[in-house]
Amino acid sequence: MRARRYKAESAPMNGDQNSAKAITGSMPMKGGNGTYSYSMNSYYQKKSAEIEKEKIMEVIAEKLDMKNLSSVSNTIRLADLGCSTGTNTFVTMQGILEAMQQKYQSQCTPDDHQTMPEFQVFFNDLVLNDFNTLFTSLPKDRPYFAAGVPGSFHDRLFPESSIHLVHTSYALHWLSKLPEELQNKTFPAWNKGRIHYTSAPKEVVDAYVSQFAKDMKNFLDARAKELVPGGMMVMILTGIPRSIPYSQTPTGMMYDSISSSLMDMAKEGLIDEGQVDSFNLPFYAASLEELEGLVVKNGCFIMERMESSNPAAWLKGPVDIRQWVMHIRAAMEGMFARHFGSHEVMDQMFQRSAQKLSDQSDLINSRCHLKTQLLAVLKRK
Amino acid sequence: MRARRYKAESAPMNGDQNSAKAITGSMPMKGGNGTYSYSMNSYYQKKSAEIEKEKIMEVIAEKLDMKNLSSVSNTIRLADLGCSTGTNTFVTMQGILEAMQQKYQSQCTPDDHQTMPEFQVFFNDLVLNDFNTLFTSLPKDRPYFAAGVPGSFHDRLFPESSIHLVHTSYALHWLSKLPEELQNKTFPAWNKGRIHYTSAPKEVVDAYVSQFAKDMKNFLDARAKELVPGGMMVMILTGIPRSIPYSQTPTGMMYDSISSSLMDMAKEGLIDEGQVDSFNLPFYAASLEELEGLVVKNGCFIMERMESSNPAAWLKGPVDIRQWVMHIRAAMEGMFARHFGSHEVMDQMFQRSAQKLSDQSDLINSRCHLKTQLLAVLKRK
Repeated sequence: MRARRYKAESAPMNGDQNSAKAITGSMPMKGGNGTYSYSMNSYYQKKSAEIEKEKIMEVIAEKLDMKNLSSVSNTIRLADLGCSTGTNTFVTMQGILEAMQQKYQSQCTPDDHQTMPEFQVFFNDLVLNDFNTLFTSLPKDRPYFAAGVPGSFHDRLFPESSIHLVHTSYALHWLSKLPEELQNKTFPAWNKGRIHYTSAPKEVVDAYVSQFAKDMKNFLDARAKELVPGGMMVMILTGIPRSIPYSQTPTGMMYDSISSSLMDMAKEGLIDEGQVDSFNLPFYAASLEELEGLVVKNGCFIMERMESSNPAAWLKGPVDIRQWVMHIRAAMEGMFARHFGSHEVMDQMFQRSAQKLSDQSDLINSRCHLKTQLLAVLKRK
Repeated sequence: MRARRYKAESAPMNGDQNSAKAITGSMPMKGGNGTYSYSMNSYYQKKSAEIEKEKIMEVIAEKLDMKNLSSVSNTIRLADLGCSTGTNTFVTMQGILEAMQQKYQSQCTPDDHQTMPEFQVFFNDLVLNDFNTLFTSLPKDRPYFAAGVPGSFHDRLFPESSIHLVHTSYALHWLSKLPEELQNKTFPAWNKGRIHYTSAPKEVVDAYVSQFAKDMKNFLDARAKELVPGGMMVMILTGIPRSIPYSQTPTGMMYDSISSSLMDMAKEGLIDEGQVDSFNLPFYAASLEELEGLVVKNGCFIMERMESSNPAAWLKGPVDIRQWVMHIRAAMEGMFARHFGSHEVMDQMFQRSAQKLSDQSDLINSRCHLKTQLLAVLKRK
């Protein structure tokens, strides 16, 4: 539902993003409202995440025990993990807060002698996120006390049993770092000629799977400590239907086109082939079943709602391939440019990829219905 | 003990600062480590505030009931109000936190079956403070969870009964805004020919007194809500011994010299006299007795320790007037320049003020022993 400063959506039909932090350090999004801009990207994320809004409201109304939570604490604490700087986070968190207030009112009668608790909302993102912009954008008449929390959500961010609801959207599919196996030429997971595990040998895919599992373990362990019993966690992330190879998703096709364009350019001497081999996107799309397995393994959460959706259900008509590539470019150019260098190389890479994808537009459109967005709503036991 | 982004120390012997926010909006401090720099200013504040350190540790050891506080909450929450971006806030808050841990250990035996609580530290400053710099400067191995809170401490910042210790240093002497009476030519408090209430008629002084009282009321009301019963508040601010006019303090002499230099320049046609009349520093130095009166009026706090000190006790030898003026310039030039314009005017203003002050160096040195730093340690009833 929002873009983090160091990630960005890769396609109108998919919320893929990238964490430049994991590769080369910070990569600010482009400003303004143009085609290449961050705000346009965050608009797509917003539209895709809105698909989940009603489901989240339903789970809060049905499964969150506000009466119990507020009987223990006079402050209800919410956290948005991977909040970025944009306005999406304010809209989302206020929506969730209002659903919690409604649930409170439906549960507590005046006879309960309880007063509506106060709310505190923590906005978290990596330490290099632009918190100054976030803070100056805070709504003036907000019904909560706001705080910013810098740091990786793969580590602890809050005191034990202090948070009542965690929300995280379009963030968990970013790996905390590239798997080490990808970074040594002599290992079987050396990802020669590709920029991602799409269409890669099993060793490469396994390295990504294993890193995602480690990251999710750390994430769930930390949140299990921080959430109060009965507290809730809402996670929206990019995923993939089980048993479909990533190369059959539109985003996978995009990555394959970029890999192939870069290799063409290497053959023509425009770039060095070794540059392609050593570049990898730290992005992993899990299946719902895979995510469920990791939640079960953690053991601290009840799964209240687990489902996958088509994040592009709101899009009308066929995908405009050129526009899609422009969005990818807006989101990822900085990251590629740091590794591959010149603007000319970027021009070539995106132009060639656009051509390759245009040649497959029917196939891409036929794959746009895939349920590549995961929603998981968990409750702390 | 630290400089806020919109305040700065005015003198080696006095922690006067200014809030450009209250006059014209933001005024970033100068970067770097040079003579005019923010870091040099924050060094003086640090040295002056360190005078209070031992007293604060003593009050925590004697008066703070950590056993009781931690029996109610497994998280102990601290807040530094007016934290700025510098490293002073980290050193101070960690020192206070360690004193609280020691007190906990002295109170709780293993038989109490309590474990050391976790600590969360909130760093607060105005919304235009540079939180990005603050967050990237956070110590790596900090024994607490950190959060930033943007907003004015004259309003509520935290949920009710959620904070256990508040610290604020070199911030409370800044008014939230200029008194309205100063801003109308037809009012008796129109401060003609001066930049401050130093040497001003009673009406001007009263307007400042009244604004300080309003601000302190709002501050104490908000903190009374936010602090838990038994929670503590440490306040360090610039003040003045009772019955001494501000014009008899070194800083007051500085302000008078600046006023007088500006009026000379107006007479020479370098600036417009109206510009001097309409400029006022929103800084007020209260006496300890005045502060006590406001705390009593609020009624929610016990005064555990109230005293005044000479903030320049650590300075060796006589004041170097030129250096002092350079510091003032570093701290305040931006604010003056916004109102008075050109760099040439600033050069003239500070050069003339330095000359006037040099002519009075014996008198300034004789007044450097004044107890112009207030410490108030309060406990929430």
